[in-house]
Amino acid sequence: MFRTQNDCTYLMPVHFGGGKFDPGTIVSQRTVALGITYETDGKLLENYIPEGFELLAPEVQVTFNKFTEINWMHGGYYNLINVAAPVRFHGKKDHLDGSYTLVVWENRTAPILGGREQTGIPKIYADIEDLHVLRPHYSTTVSYEGNTFLTMDFEAAGAVTGDDLEGLRSGFASINTIGWRYIPKVGAPGADLSQFVLYPQGMEVETAQVGTGTLKWTELTPVQNPAQYYIINSLAALPMKRITQAALMEGRAILRAMGARVIE
Amino acid sequence: MFRTQNDCTYLMPVHFGGGKFDPGTIVSQRTVALGITYETDGKLLENYIPEGFELLAPEVQVTFNKFTEINWMHGGYYNLINVAAPVRFHGKKDHLDGSYTLVVWENRTAPILGGREQTGIPKIYADIEDLHVLRPHYSTTVSYEGNTFLTMDFEAAGAVTGDDLEGLRSGFASINTIGWRYIPKVGAPGADLSQFVLYPQGMEVETAQVGTGTLKWTELTPVQNPAQYYIINSLAALPMKRITQAALMEGRAILRAMGARVIE
Amino acid sequence: MFRTQNDCTYLMPVHFGGGKFDPGTIVSQRTVALGITYETDGKLLENYIPEGFELLAPEVQVTFNKFTEINWMHGGYYNLINVAAPVRFHGKKDHLDGSYTLVVWENRTAPILGGREQTGIPKIYADIEDLHVLRPHYSTTVSYEGNTFLTMDFEAAGAVTGDDLEGLRSGFASINTIGWRYIPKVGAPGADLSQFVLYPQGMEVETAQVGTGTLKWTELTPVQNPAQYYIINSLAALPMKRITQAALMEGRAILRAMGARVIE
Amino acid sequence: MFRTQNDCTYLMPVHFGGGKFDPGTIVSQRTVALGITYETDGKLLENYIPEGFELLAPEVQVTFNKFTEINWMHGGYYNLINVAAPVRFHGKKDHLDGSYTLVVWENRTAPILGGREQTGIPKIYADIEDLHVLRPHYSTTVSYEGNTFLTMDFEAAGAVTGDDLEGLRSGFASINTIGWRYIPKVGAPGADLSQFVLYPQGMEVETAQVGTGTLKWTELTPVQNPAQYYIINSLAALPMKRITQAALMEGRAILRAMGARVIE
Repeated sequence: MFRTQNDCTYLMPVHFGGGKFDPGTIVSQRTVALGITYETDGKLLENYIPEGFELLAPEVQVTFNKFTEINWMHGGYYNLINVAAPVRFHGKKDHLDGSYTLVVWENRTAPILGGREQTGIPKIYADIEDLHVLRPHYSTTVSYEGNTFLTMDFEAAGAVTGDDLEGLRSGFASINTIGWRYIPKVGAPGADLSQFVLYPQGMEVETAQVGTGTLKWTELTPVQNPAQYYIINSLAALPMKRITQAALMEGRAILRAMGARVIE
Repeated sequence: MFRTQNDCTYLMPVHFGGGKFDPGTIVSQRTVALGITYETDGKLLENYIPEGFELLAPEVQVTFNKFTEINWMHGGYYNLINVAAPVRFHGKKDHLDGSYTLVVWENRTAPILGGREQTGIPKIYADIEDLHVLRPHYSTTVSYEGNTFLTMDFEAAGAVTGDDLEGLRSGFASINTIGWRYIPKVGAPGADLSQFVLYPQGMEVETAQVGTGTLKWTELTPVQNPAQYYIINSLAALPMKRITQAALMEGRAILRAMGARVIE
Repeated sequence: MFRTQNDCTYLMPVHFGGGKFDPGTIVSQRTVALGITYETDGKLLENYIPEGFELLAPEVQVTFNKFTEINWMHGGYYNLINVAAPVRFHGKKDHLDGSYTLVVWENRTAPILGGREQTGIPKIYADIEDLHVLRPHYSTTVSYEGNTFLTMDFEAAGAVTGDDLEGLRSGFASINTIGWRYIPKVGAPGADLSQFVLYPQGMEVETAQVGTGTLKWTELTPVQNPAQYYIINSLAALPMKRITQAALMEGRAILRAMGARVIE
Repeated sequence: MFRTQNDCTYLMPVHFGGGKFDPGTIVSQRTVALGITYETDGKLLENYIPEGFELLAPEVQVTFNKFTEINWMHGGYYNLINVAAPVRFHGKKDHLDGSYTLVVWENRTAPILGGREQTGIPKIYADIEDLHVLRPHYSTTVSYEGNTFLTMDFEAAGAVTGDDLEGLRSGFASINTIGWRYIPKVGAPGADLSQFVLYPQGMEVETAQVGTGTLKWTELTPVQNPAQYYIINSLAALPMKRITQAALMEGRAILRAMGARVIE
């Protein structure tokens, strides 16, 4: 009969075996990132920030990432859209600034499962086009079962160099990504597990370009996207006052896969 | 700021809101099911059955389902491959027979997330073809990133009628599906949550055909399927002594979405 | 060395062999069809009807079809969106009424190739969802690389029976589908082949429902759909004055695969 | 009513308009190419080489290409698998050496249509994974409806530099790609159009690596791939005597889109 090992970590299904827990496990991957940040209404945005956090700026950060050469996928690849807001966590023990993850869409299920269950990143599925590139123009489309709900466009204006590039590099060297891991009770309301998780992530920026970004949310109906329409429509309803930043970066992401911890 | 409601149930992301917990919530969907069961080596199969369970027969049950007209998806659809074994649970409180879920592949992510987090069904992703039907022949292919790992074929020999159909109907009216819900610790080996969950499921069989079934597992390498190869290869290594049952059924599945409970 | 046989018919690649030409070849498949017809501006619609044809009514006929149990695909399946207008052909030899095919989108490439090269049906690729069905509501979405360009919705109001069903049956028993087969010159403007082809098609209607249909075209940019945007935008620019018909039908399509002929 | 313009070139559907024929039209795209060539039995290979050609070597050339930043797709991308053999054409007018295209699989329909109808390249559809890259290992899988039929693997051994790189560059600067454009008669055996087309193509090689390549064909049944099984099985039946070349290259492809011509 199957029995778990004390020094292993598992994901469902458990009974085919897990992996030896190794705190030094490294995730390594190449990435192209397109980030567009915009100012919104802080009061409205706070509706989606849980108690215990303080919203540091009325800002929505949307980032497209294409990951390739992913070591834990034996060289595989996937795309994601990360939506976050800058926050300060006021816990009993922990006090820190970070990026609170509102939602992440990914076009591959395996990293969705690990991200949710191991680190509380609220990942869900969408179809995400690779960047269409006709220099200096870059664009992508995000959709669910054929229903477009997000488009991102970028016109590069020039490379970032010198001190600006160094600044970008140090800014992206480590980001305090924060997720809310929540596992519901079985057959009852409420949670069996509800924790905030800090998962420091970083990117070694190699090259970067700034430019003009545009971003468009399209509302969907429950028929078009039964499990996500209210998420999309909540984001679409936040006013986009002005784009404050748009940048395209290439580099590597190297992170400690087991480096997350619960914050209190 | 966002705050959870006591009478609601949530899935990540939590902060866009959940649903009022309603124990009477009904999942309704139409289904075509192709089930093929085979005898294997009981000692080998027991390697994948956790302690606390008794294997009732050296039997692997593989079922393809196409679900359509799914109410909670506003009419959407998806396919699954369920792999299970017949077991008896010997708990401190609960004693019952059921179908222990070894693994489920689905071609849609939303039901994978709910199934794992709400009821411990170990669902993972695969591409699953709709049935190719050239009566009396039916077939499907299951693959991951273009790598075939399971094919199922069925030649219908005739409709099930009369008492046989009634027997089938009562047999499928309620099945004790059992999953192992396991959520790992953050940044440490072991589990934050490890429970066996009973989720009674049933199908109202309308029509059924028996026939000849064949089923073929193909081993994959870590490069071909980094997150699942060991699951597939474990199943592929179980000897297929003989096919004991093969049937194609159509009908409806109506189940109590909140009717699962932890068994101890 | 490879040499073609006089009694065979071929598609590229030719040198792996073709099939014996058999005028009696039958294509057989099951189908669910959702047809929505609307009145438009005749003058504008005539811009897309070639000389030699007369537009019989200012009408755009849009039909979704899901085909299954397709004999020439060994039981495979695909979806299509057919867009047509009612015309009269005034040729030197041939005089006939039919349905002029403006464009067909299909979500499988094999029938696109045969349809274009063998019978001049102007088929191109799109992602086409199966019908989402929450009775009495039916809907589908058509998109290209994640960019929605057509949605169809239908609310069934009741079954068609008696004489109405018989009328529908005889109306769909044979339809004069007309395509324009056009193969360009190599390295020069103009055509090496330009012919109108009549391909009689039919459906054995088994059941039918009438109801309320809605249909929405969404314009796309060249970045979103480089090879088709002008087709979609031409159709989207035609005014939708009123929906004149909306019906959902199930049945079989049985047609003579080699029954097409060039009309002059 | 619609009427074609004399100075334009069209693809079906014709009546929404074509493009001004411009002999200087340039196709530009970036590419990563993985080429693996193997020796086979010349007599068997000749079965698939049409009369009028001479097989120059008993050699099958299989090339994976990922194209990105494609100008005519406004920055889109797709993958292909090209299978060819080295030939000499002995025509009435034309005498030239080139690469005879046995078959091309592509994972996007638009270039399949243009390639077939404009230049006679026998393109058909398959799912083709992007390269999975875990340096120095590269691999891809080619499948149809979930049925794997080709895998390619490459272990890079070192960069090509100096004179070797120059040799590679001049070798790839222009390749005489030859296709057989064949359009069948409507309602009769035989062809309305049957021509050999020369389409000079080239690649500006920027970097290259040599290494060890492996390639595996898997036979499929008509149920698994109704329109292509005989093509795949013909190729799979050619003995793979030894791999004679394996290289990975990056660079640009710049070609004259209208530079093809019929050879006689």
